[in-house]
Amino acid sequence: MQALMMNSQLMISNILKHAEKNYPNREIVSVTADNPRHRYTYKDFAVRTRQLANALDALGAKFGDRIGTLAWNDYRHLELYYAISGSGMVCHTINPKLFPEQVNYIINHAQDRFIFVDVLVMPLIEALAEHLPNVETFIVLTNKANMPQTKLENVLCYEELIADKSTEFEWPEFDENTASGMCYTSGTTGNPKGVVYSHRSTMLHAYAGALPDVTNSSGRETCLPVVPMFHVNAWGLPFGTIMTGTKLVMPGPKMGDGETLQNLIESENVSFSSGVPTIWLALLDYLDKSGKKITSLSRVTVGGAACPRTIIERFKQQHNTMVYQGWGMTETSPLGTIFGLQPGMEEYTDEQITDLQTMQGRGVFGIEMRIVDEDNNELPWDGVAFGALKVRGPWVISGYYGMSQTPGEEGCPVDDKGWFDTGDVATINPEGFMQITDRTKDVIKSGGEWVSSIDIENAAVSHPAIAEAAAIGRYHPKWTERPLLIAVRKGDTQVTSAEILSFLTDKLHKWSLPDDVVFVDELPHTATGKLNKLALRKTFEDYEFPEAG
Amino acid sequence: MQALMMNSQLMISNILKHAEKNYPNREIVSVTADNPRHRYTYKDFAVRTRQLANALDALGAKFGDRIGTLAWNDYRHLELYYAISGSGMVCHTINPKLFPEQVNYIINHAQDRFIFVDVLVMPLIEALAEHLPNVETFIVLTNKANMPQTKLENVLCYEELIADKSTEFEWPEFDENTASGMCYTSGTTGNPKGVVYSHRSTMLHAYAGALPDVTNSSGRETCLPVVPMFHVNAWGLPFGTIMTGTKLVMPGPKMGDGETLQNLIESENVSFSSGVPTIWLALLDYLDKSGKKITSLSRVTVGGAACPRTIIERFKQQHNTMVYQGWGMTETSPLGTIFGLQPGMEEYTDEQITDLQTMQGRGVFGIEMRIVDEDNNELPWDGVAFGALKVRGPWVISGYYGMSQTPGEEGCPVDDKGWFDTGDVATINPEGFMQITDRTKDVIKSGGEWVSSIDIENAAVSHPAIAEAAAIGRYHPKWTERPLLIAVRKGDTQVTSAEILSFLTDKLHKWSLPDDVVFVDELPHTATGKLNKLALRKTFEDYEFPEAG
Ligand SMILES: Nc1ncnc2c1ncn2[C@@H]1O[C@H](COP(=O)(O)OP(=O)(O)OP(=O)(O)O)[C@@H](O)[C@H]1O
Ligand SMILES: Nc1ncnc2c1ncn2[C@@H]1O[C@H](COP(=O)(O)OP(=O)(O)OP(=O)(O)O)[C@@H](O)[C@H]1O
Ligand SMILES: [Mg+2]
Ligand SMILES: [Mg+2]
Repeated sequence: MQALMMNSQLMISNILKHAEKNYPNREIVSVTADNPRHRYTYKDFAVRTRQLANALDALGAKFGDRIGTLAWNDYRHLELYYAISGSGMVCHTINPKLFPEQVNYIINHAQDRFIFVDVLVMPLIEALAEHLPNVETFIVLTNKANMPQTKLENVLCYEELIADKSTEFEWPEFDENTASGMCYTSGTTGNPKGVVYSHRSTMLHAYAGALPDVTNSSGRETCLPVVPMFHVNAWGLPFGTIMTGTKLVMPGPKMGDGETLQNLIESENVSFSSGVPTIWLALLDYLDKSGKKITSLSRVTVGGAACPRTIIERFKQQHNTMVYQGWGMTETSPLGTIFGLQPGMEEYTDEQITDLQTMQGRGVFGIEMRIVDEDNNELPWDGVAFGALKVRGPWVISGYYGMSQTPGEEGCPVDDKGWFDTGDVATINPEGFMQITDRTKDVIKSGGEWVSSIDIENAAVSHPAIAEAAAIGRYHPKWTERPLLIAVRKGDTQVTSAEILSFLTDKLHKWSLPDDVVFVDELPHTATGKLNKLALRKTFEDYEFPEAG
Repeated sequence: MQALMMNSQLMISNILKHAEKNYPNREIVSVTADNPRHRYTYKDFAVRTRQLANALDALGAKFGDRIGTLAWNDYRHLELYYAISGSGMVCHTINPKLFPEQVNYIINHAQDRFIFVDVLVMPLIEALAEHLPNVETFIVLTNKANMPQTKLENVLCYEELIADKSTEFEWPEFDENTASGMCYTSGTTGNPKGVVYSHRSTMLHAYAGALPDVTNSSGRETCLPVVPMFHVNAWGLPFGTIMTGTKLVMPGPKMGDGETLQNLIESENVSFSSGVPTIWLALLDYLDKSGKKITSLSRVTVGGAACPRTIIERFKQQHNTMVYQGWGMTETSPLGTIFGLQPGMEEYTDEQITDLQTMQGRGVFGIEMRIVDEDNNELPWDGVAFGALKVRGPWVISGYYGMSQTPGEEGCPVDDKGWFDTGDVATINPEGFMQITDRTKDVIKSGGEWVSSIDIENAAVSHPAIAEAAAIGRYHPKWTERPLLIAVRKGDTQVTSAEILSFLTDKLHKWSLPDDVVFVDELPHTATGKLNKLALRKTFEDYEFPEAG
């Protein structure tokens, strides 16, 4: 029997309409290349976004067109998010820190017709422009006074483009499964692949993400998204916050700068923030050095890579800030799991709570999880069994752009039961807390057993003289593979391999202890700041274990 | 361009699956006719609900069948909600307090095949059974020991029915627009009309309802739904709470009993609750008399009728409990608007905040509102202009069961632009706060101007000697209609009409002052406890104003 409810489609433009009517005076504060502290209201934001929609129309952009952005977290990028998606076009966010070849590949693969680019990214565009045959116009995200000199001809100025446009625009309504955004995976484990979000997936993700046990977004909160808007929509924050009337503080190009972050937090009364672990290390180090405070910051969401225990402890002990570790992927919009406080935890020790915070958390409502063995049989949630992590839900991909959508076919990431294979390996405990032990490709397979590289790395960085560490599997004549730990020493400490190995003895199962530790000056990272193990395995291709040689 | 996201349908059964896996030990506490304090866990709940689904199947119930419930707020009713909807059948909740003829009409109109009935409602069913040709079996919500004597033959015992059923059940997946539930309007303004909810509408409503600025449901909260599960799904609480892992406390048949409510709140550590104004008056009076406390209760949602200012003040001043007034309808699932705290309010006086609490609040995200004049032209949000309140959104009806779905046709409540006419008259201020001034049918039209009956009633009940009051329009030779106030005195107070009129002088515009006050012993109410103005207008049909006679 069919229900008799309105067939109202979930439209991103509804966020904008709701925000303007209900929170007209709420603020959006941004750092941009041309203004260290720009501020305006939701009302201003809505008006300018309508002007931008008219400008897109005037440029000749059509429903379904891909519009690229190479930009930081600021109000103009926010206007692009809403004007592009709201008009039925596809907001294709591009990571300017990728290798130029990757940016080139991605723009051509998506067939972007227009590209909106930050002043700071103009050099990249100037180098690539001749290889981008589909791009008709580049629009620089600045005002006339700050327009850069350029030899490119098809370049416009953002502020000039929208200045004379009408402030009236009727947002169209259409099928909620229409593409609203696009983001390519960063290429940590292979070539960039396109993920295409819909209005429906974005809106459901925003509802779920704003819930009290997820980001707890509301009209009384202020959010500083330190995760970039060019990477998985800044984890969806630009939607969930504006939907709920949360004040936004956008750090622009200053994302890795502890001083700017501290200053924004204190002066704008930021209550929560989100970002990858390295960002927080930068902030915590700055706070240590400067003695400055972040008193308003009650919580941070940390994800994108395993959050080291020290980050959790330093935030808690020094700043009374609670870390909510989350796990997600470009392919999952990204919200998959997040730490959550539970009744009964009042009686836990700090230590026990920290233990839970180092896990990846519980499924956000809307995401179903399972772990499976090599024959795709479901494994128990006992905190011990580990297997390939699979997920499904309305904000998980059914396939990559331009690749097969048919389970079983090359390139289709979904199995015949409808589950997306995350490429991660995990355990899940009886209360639903998931823990990533590895990426499938990084698992160390030793004598038929799986050894978690993340466990080894976490244990290693808890040594005071270790700045960063990576564990990879290397050939061993008897066990096929054994773990090799590659570490970076802190400052000018002189710790030895033997010391590290003995330090690890009571922290890891005997079986997980690395067979050797080598020191390097620096570890390779990807454009999103993650350990590049592909590169590491390449570097240590010919490595042989001392006793096994 | 189509997005590439999974086509996962929003299914009510996903709440159950998620809850069992993530909050297995969370509690559901109930008062029932056979147990003053039943308690079990989400895990138990999920297991028994699967047994019930198997039992429905064994009874021969089929996808799309309407299954009636005549029951209070307790765990068995909750099991019915999830087992019926989860199986693709329609959970038709029926208000046992309606007139028997209405119950009869509703059951036959919906063509319920099975009816689950509380022990306390058996007399009603025994009286009606012979007029219910479609009902095959009545199942009494109790165990064998407490089965009532009955002369009806087709009667089963709930606990016996499910006891031997398998605890395994694979919840089916189907189109999210499938009917999941059904509720008839209560008949305050006419014949009961059927509203049919979908899985989609219910799930979106649950997400929106759990948000921090709505009910703020989370794993750390405990909710006491005092609004009945037979009326608009207890305002959706059975979904939003279990989705988020909130502990539930269900008052069973003790909904109007201040002593039980106080006891449940204190002993189960209830943090929030919801109900109509009269329920709260009963609780507040009990607290006054007994001197008892409700220390854990931080907030209550009040809706269904205008919340008198005294309720807001008594909760705040005596119990430090914040009232969140909300507005909604059976036709809107019901969440439409709710009060919300805003930044800047720290500087408001208590008085100013109370003023805002007496309004009906701001649109919950997902609901679009507008007010229109008699030609359906939109009116401004200036807090002054008032007009017919119209809404739209994914949890608003497109039509009533068995009636026209075509705008413009008789019985279709939606206009040709897709807006549902609520039958309420309202103003909306520049920050989105909506205020109901009247029902369209209750508006007093005096000399071409509209006078708000709710304003008069609110002012009248703020007099210490007035227990309840109703304002209706009565014939006036010069002004067509003028307001008549009909009031009930408190206890044995002896206040006069003249005293009330003088008391109102500085509280109302001159134009809104009633032309007369008459006292009655009691005002008529509908089955959901609202003032029955239809009946009042009937009683005072021949009334003539003194000076106008
Ligand atoms: N909290 C976390 N703990 C451990 N790993 C995490 C966490 N959050 C995310 N990850 C890792 O990051 C991955 C998702 O990252 P993202 O989608 O940003 O690109 P990527 O997987 O690094 O790059 P690519 O897919 O291009 O190889 C997850 O699959 C997981 O391996
Ligand atoms: N906070 C509130 N303040 C004033 N009125 C309210 C409030 N909440 C709800 N109402 C009134 O209740 C109505 C919705 O009630 P409900 O759907 O329970 O049935 P009803 O309208 O009373 O009965 P029927 O539709 O059968 O005549 C609204 O249309 C509005 O008139
Ligand atoms: Mg990946
Ligand atoms: Mg009504």
